[in-house]
Amino acid sequence: MPTSRPPHDLPGRVSRVVVTPVAFRDPPLLNVVGVHQPYVLRAVVQVHADEGLVGLGETYADQAHLDRLEAVAAALPGADVFDLNGLRRVVVEALGASTGGAGASFGGMLEVSSAVDTVAAPFEVALLDLQGKALGRPVSDLLGGAVRERVPYSAYLFYKWAGHPGHGEDDWGEGRTPEQLVAQARRMVTEYGFTAVKLKGGVHEPRHEIETVEALAAEFPGHALRIDPNGAWTVGTSIEVAGRLADVLEYLEDPTPGIEGMALVAERTELPLATNMCVIAFEHLRPAVAADAVQVVLSDHHLWGGLRRSALLGGICETFGLGLSMHSNSHLGISLAAMTHLAAATPNLTYACDTHDPWKTEDVVRPGVLEFRDGSVAVPTGPGLGIELDEDALAALHEQYVTCGQRGREDTAYMRSIVPGFTPNTARW
Amino acid sequence: MPTSRPPHDLPGRVSRVVVTPVAFRDPPLLNVVGVHQPYVLRAVVQVHADEGLVGLGETYADQAHLDRLEAVAAALPGADVFDLNGLRRVVVEALGASTGGAGASFGGMLEVSSAVDTVAAPFEVALLDLQGKALGRPVSDLLGGAVRERVPYSAYLFYKWAGHPGHGEDDWGEGRTPEQLVAQARRMVTEYGFTAVKLKGGVHEPRHEIETVEALAAEFPGHALRIDPNGAWTVGTSIEVAGRLADVLEYLEDPTPGIEGMALVAERTELPLATNMCVIAFEHLRPAVAADAVQVVLSDHHLWGGLRRSALLGGICETFGLGLSMHSNSHLGISLAAMTHLAAATPNLTYACDTHDPWKTEDVVRPGVLEFRDGSVAVPTGPGLGIELDEDALAALHEQYVTCGQRGREDTAYMRSIVPGFTPNTARW
Repeated sequence: MPTSRPPHDLPGRVSRVVVTPVAFRDPPLLNVVGVHQPYVLRAVVQVHADEGLVGLGETYADQAHLDRLEAVAAALPGADVFDLNGLRRVVVEALGASTGGAGASFGGMLEVSSAVDTVAAPFEVALLDLQGKALGRPVSDLLGGAVRERVPYSAYLFYKWAGHPGHGEDDWGEGRTPEQLVAQARRMVTEYGFTAVKLKGGVHEPRHEIETVEALAAEFPGHALRIDPNGAWTVGTSIEVAGRLADVLEYLEDPTPGIEGMALVAERTELPLATNMCVIAFEHLRPAVAADAVQVVLSDHHLWGGLRRSALLGGICETFGLGLSMHSNSHLGISLAAMTHLAAATPNLTYACDTHDPWKTEDVVRPGVLEFRDGSVAVPTGPGLGIELDEDALAALHEQYVTCGQRGREDTAYMRSIVPGFTPNTARW
Repeated sequence: MPTSRPPHDLPGRVSRVVVTPVAFRDPPLLNVVGVHQPYVLRAVVQVHADEGLVGLGETYADQAHLDRLEAVAAALPGADVFDLNGLRRVVVEALGASTGGAGASFGGMLEVSSAVDTVAAPFEVALLDLQGKALGRPVSDLLGGAVRERVPYSAYLFYKWAGHPGHGEDDWGEGRTPEQLVAQARRMVTEYGFTAVKLKGGVHEPRHEIETVEALAAEFPGHALRIDPNGAWTVGTSIEVAGRLADVLEYLEDPTPGIEGMALVAERTELPLATNMCVIAFEHLRPAVAADAVQVVLSDHHLWGGLRRSALLGGICETFGLGLSMHSNSHLGISLAAMTHLAAATPNLTYACDTHDPWKTEDVVRPGVLEFRDGSVAVPTGPGLGIELDEDALAALHEQYVTCGQRGREDTAYMRSIVPGFTPNTARW
């Protein structure tokens, strides 16, 4: 009986890497640092291997980040598609002295001390996509196997303007009053079937945002509710709001900035505190655990170095008694597929994941695979990520990138171009 | 350009699982709870998949553990070889109410609250071996890629009797005096090229063991030295010994029992404290980190649930600023191969790994792949674990199991059969 056999003709080496910046339209969604610009910038990473297979990744596309992606793209050919540890070495070397800062601006809300994880992430996803395509196995299998067939997502409500100034009213219209936000939620719940609803706060004074949450709770009894003011509140206000909403929320996300502030809030409430602001890199876990600052970490494979590093985060959360949820920035279908595979293969990722998907009207992947039903997306079963790039759409969104003029995410600058003198609401109330 | 293709004809499903207990000869090596019996019991796990491929795993073979392995073996056929999360579900279900205790006795030295990780481990290794064989890729590739071509191991010195009572003197002879231990080390260093040397202590009073370490330091300047008394000392004695040997040791392993005791020692010494006794499961990490009880964790894939869970342990150690080394029980070549792949793919596993290999005179794998040179083993580059089972040797060692009469690891009982009234030396001095 044979106990081994010669290697398959698996694609062994990276032959070529193409990084394509794209821009897709986005409504004027408000947050603590300003407002979403007319376009979201993303970079699509295509890693070609010998035999003609192509792996896909997606990430931010601020200019500084793009420059770093290009440096890695130039260095990666020849790499073994299974050597994910080697990818990190390539990234470290390609970044050289320029590893400080995340490169991607995250709208000015987040800071990490090293760009290695953020830069490595889309290449790691692309290599896993390549491995899966070569093996005829979905990426979830490479992460240990899907523990669920569908991944639940949450509705993501935003206070918003009726439209970008000068462009009339958009399809969603104004989102300012509790009634308008309830209507926004109703549309999302009806169209997508979400049973969890997240409100992006930090825009209006807390009383207004509390009223919005309470209106949502009244309208959607039994739905899991969350609010994320992105650190707009003081410790004292956070404790007050937590008390007021304790029976209504499943968790309270980043009420106040920083591990120290979150720890002070956590001491005074039974409501789990979640974060994707004060714990966004491995370096933050040790101090956060020591301070008992957060009870739920929102993973994000774009920030945490890819799918396997995010699985590590999942294991750390399980080991240290932390809950695990998933953060979303505005994204396209490549990232939605990657998020879905990761969530499917992470047993303790039991909260519905965040997604900006409903706000998106353009994409680079062919439709049909990533459909929402009952608030969830079926884990793709095709090889790799299980999705297909639409080359025409990619070209069109790249052209849009070229002509749109945006070269970074600048929520605050865009807000100031409309509301002069605007300052971010961080710890304002 | 194709971006995907039909699945390869990878083996998809487990067809049959065979668990074979074996016994191999072992010298009378002394430790805190007694002495090694004439035979080491191990279980060889063969997981057959469709297409005739076979994956290999190796674990303990105490009767209680064997019973649990058999329960899993009966339940595993039909499982997807890539579904490692599913394997854990099968184990949990197969164990039913009987998950308490490790099942394997570890000579009476260790206790864990659940057998799931210990029982799952050999099957996980076998599934990874199967995946690698099917893909034509070494297991290290499935763990993220080897970061080193060779894995360093340490010499493992034991105080020992000249031979098992009634069987004359063995090949190594008596190991009691510092001079005899230096000679034992000299033989290992000469034959294997080890540059790290570990002494198993907890056998003689501390003064004698300190003298042995000092004799080793004098004879092998520049070698990395360790002593592991398996918790034989009180907190006070541990602090004293740590002070005395601070300049000689690279770390001090388990001087005293328990997280609390280790934390008290750690407070009073700069010498890193290592453990494979008070942190041997994920449940121990949180309290150990909180107490700053240990500075180096010794991983062991047999205990920690396999290679991927051990990689998780590695990531946790990196994240929480803990050093990482590797523990060894007496083992055969299947485990040595698995340990080598794991260590190769774990960037922060920078200490030489423990191994009992030099004490072993019998094996179930064909020779040639796992050779020691300069104290290290080359990472096998063949598919899967890269080793081949010797069916005749397996049959012979199984026959030895059948006839030897041992059905568990009973260091204390065996010691008492020779030294009536012996009690373990735990926290004795």
